Amino acid sequence: MDDIKNYMKKIGEQARLASLALAKADTSTKNSALEYIATALEESRQQLIAENKKDMDAGEKKGLDAALLDRLALNDARIDSMIEGIRQVATLPDPIGEITDLKYRPSGIQIGKMRVALGVIGIVYESRPNVTADAAALCLKSGNAAILRGGSEAIHSNKAIAKCLEQGLLGAGLPSTAVQVIETTDRAAVGELITMSDYVDVIIPRGGKGLIERISKVARVPVIKHLDGICHVYIDDDADEKKAVDIALNAKTHRYGVCNAMETLLVSKAVAELILPVLAEKYLEKGVELRGCNRTVGIISEAKAASEADWQTEYLAPILSIKVVEGVDEAIAHIQKYSSKHTDAIVTENYTTSRQFLTEVDSSSVMINASTRFADGFEYGLGAEIGISTDKFHVRGPVGLEGLTSQKFIVFGDGQTRN
Amino acid sequence: MDDIKNYMKKIGEQARLASLALAKADTSTKNSALEYIATALEESRQQLIAENKKDMDAGEKKGLDAALLDRLALNDARIDSMIEGIRQVATLPDPIGEITDLKYRPSGIQIGKMRVALGVIGIVYESRPNVTADAAALCLKSGNAAILRGGSEAIHSNKAIAKCLEQGLLGAGLPSTAVQVIETTDRAAVGELITMSDYVDVIIPRGGKGLIERISKVARVPVIKHLDGICHVYIDDDADEKKAVDIALNAKTHRYGVCNAMETLLVSKAVAELILPVLAEKYLEKGVELRGCNRTVGIISEAKAASEADWQTEYLAPILSIKVVEGVDEAIAHIQKYSSKHTDAIVTENYTTSRQFLTEVDSSSVMINASTRFADGFEYGLGAEIGISTDKFHVRGPVGLEGLTSQKFIVFGDGQTRN
Repeated sequence: MDDIKNYMKKIGEQARLASLALAKADTSTKNSALEYIATALEESRQQLIAENKKDMDAGEKKGLDAALLDRLALNDARIDSMIEGIRQVATLPDPIGEITDLKYRPSGIQIGKMRVALGVIGIVYESRPNVTADAAALCLKSGNAAILRGGSEAIHSNKAIAKCLEQGLLGAGLPSTAVQVIETTDRAAVGELITMSDYVDVIIPRGGKGLIERISKVARVPVIKHLDGICHVYIDDDADEKKAVDIALNAKTHRYGVCNAMETLLVSKAVAELILPVLAEKYLEKGVELRGCNRTVGIISEAKAASEADWQTEYLAPILSIKVVEGVDEAIAHIQKYSSKHTDAIVTENYTTSRQFLTEVDSSSVMINASTRFADGFEYGLGAEIGISTDKFHVRGPVGLEGLTSQKFIVFGDGQTRN
Repeated sequence: MDDIKNYMKKIGEQARLASLALAKADTSTKNSALEYIATALEESRQQLIAENKKDMDAGEKKGLDAALLDRLALNDARIDSMIEGIRQVATLPDPIGEITDLKYRPSGIQIGKMRVALGVIGIVYESRPNVTADAAALCLKSGNAAILRGGSEAIHSNKAIAKCLEQGLLGAGLPSTAVQVIETTDRAAVGELITMSDYVDVIIPRGGKGLIERISKVARVPVIKHLDGICHVYIDDDADEKKAVDIALNAKTHRYGVCNAMETLLVSKAVAELILPVLAEKYLEKGVELRGCNRTVGIISEAKAASEADWQTEYLAPILSIKVVEGVDEAIAHIQKYSSKHTDAIVTENYTTSRQFLTEVDSSSVMINASTRFADGFEYGLGAEIGISTDKFHVRGPVGLEGLTSQKFIVFGDGQTRN
């Protein structure tokens, strides 16, 4: 236990020190490190696959299920996509040093803000080796040192990727400790990482809700959380029928296992009898199970009765709960009660109703006449994202490079003193 | 203990509910509540003074020191200034609902950000009744419900102010629970407040470093911290002598007991023999005690030898530590080691040196050729401030209305679905 404490303290001290070098590294140095890392991954392809095989063999022996094994696997296509991801981050604008809002004050000083790195970012994730490369690239480009702790099943893969990261950093003249992969599988290391507030400025957990809740409960370092995605689409009295059907269908069936998929459909009673039968036919065709309130079951005979638990569930599966509501007020009240504050959308042609929904729904993304599936860093033009924050503090919604930064005030004077 | 738990839970539930009404309250409703509060304070002047007398009498009996009693006291001038403060907050622009950065994406959706309230803000402060009114006004204007917990010595004053707040809120048609003053002096109430994350979105402690550290250690809700202000001024090789002397003098002697006063002066050895004697004379004239490194003591005979502890101390008093450094690199290294990351300034005419200092010094305010005393919400044009954050997460530097808000993504579509 003491060993782990000392090991993590050393990692922390090294990260803090490296963060000073990274914070002042210029854009071309950071981009060149990313390019060196991409090249190193390219050149280590065979070794990455060989090390990953050790993890896969151990995982199979351990009886990991097929989904976990799939996420653990590294093959040529996945390595290509890691490399491509790193090169994409290099093409993104550098957020660091950006100066905005410079204004003169009556005292004569000129005051503005400069964007700066947060410092040291700790990332805790499950056994997906590609996250090691993605997270490293985003932290590096945003001028932050990173401490990465992946799932223990991926330890050989992660160590092999760590070597490529180290090679790339050194190639660009940056400290190799700018990105550190924790090389012990001891769980106590996570406990240290999330509580050593002298060395770590923020923790980003990536994985299931259970992992994130466990970490949030114990952390003494701020956590950027992504809990669940119970997303709603509300079809209003004044909805355009075609838009409503397209959006409700896309939001549910474009992909089932993603956090920005719709889980509950709300329909105003004024249009329920018109729209629900059309939608039901399309959902049932795609094999989506429907669970509805009483009024819904009255309209769609194939729908089962929904229970209270349905409104609280992120299915991540071809299941949809449907509720007929009186109108926009009841829709908003339902969303305020059950939404996980990830993404909620309205379909309406009404100006005033759309403004009310936009103002009163308190979710990280609020949409008018668009599918919830758009809630994503790439679709928003942020570039790669490290996660989607369902918090309101610091950063909300898709977290790209800017979410990993802070701003300091800067003051330009000509010798001014205060009266 | 259970009673306190239930009492605080009820306060929390009421605040959460009120926050929904406040988040959608329009600017004129919020401003009218502020005006009603100002009027209520005006009309309750005699009662405020009478209730404050109870606190003052109890405080004297309890043997509070003169400084504490001074901060506790309410007189006509202080009530005037509370009222004036509230009316000033009413004149500030409303941050809520501000929409920025609306841009079209290739998919055809238009994406931007809308500024929203955080929700419920808990404020823990010492026995200064004016903070009750100031904090209430800032939370209200930024669309947040507030739970206020002042020092127990001010309980009668705070209850009397709470009545005015209630009256003002009801006058404008807002829930009276939008601002709640905790009416028990039991310390357990603070413990509940800072851990009930279901009901409270952020805690702002206002007071000494001890209070803030205690709260941060136990809180389960994000804390906006203001620890200490160990501020530096560095006089560079290329400093203009007059600017250097003016700024170094103003930063130390304009006011001693404030967080943005300079505590350590760094001087490049190239100009130390020229500038230090001039400055020393002026400091000594004002009765400032000087403590210096060896080289400083060699130049200023009146200076005592500084110890390691001096570099780590926020004196808040007419004491100054002085260090002669090799140049800007050593100055930055010293600041990185000892600064509390509040405010640090350089005096230089050199373009490259000023850019280096601006980039590499990681403090909430970094200044060139201006006195550290400018680090303040009013001077920055933010209007009233609720504190100065020495954190990097969420908000940094003076915290005005905007620091009490968050942003959500908004998406305007015309029926777009994802391919």
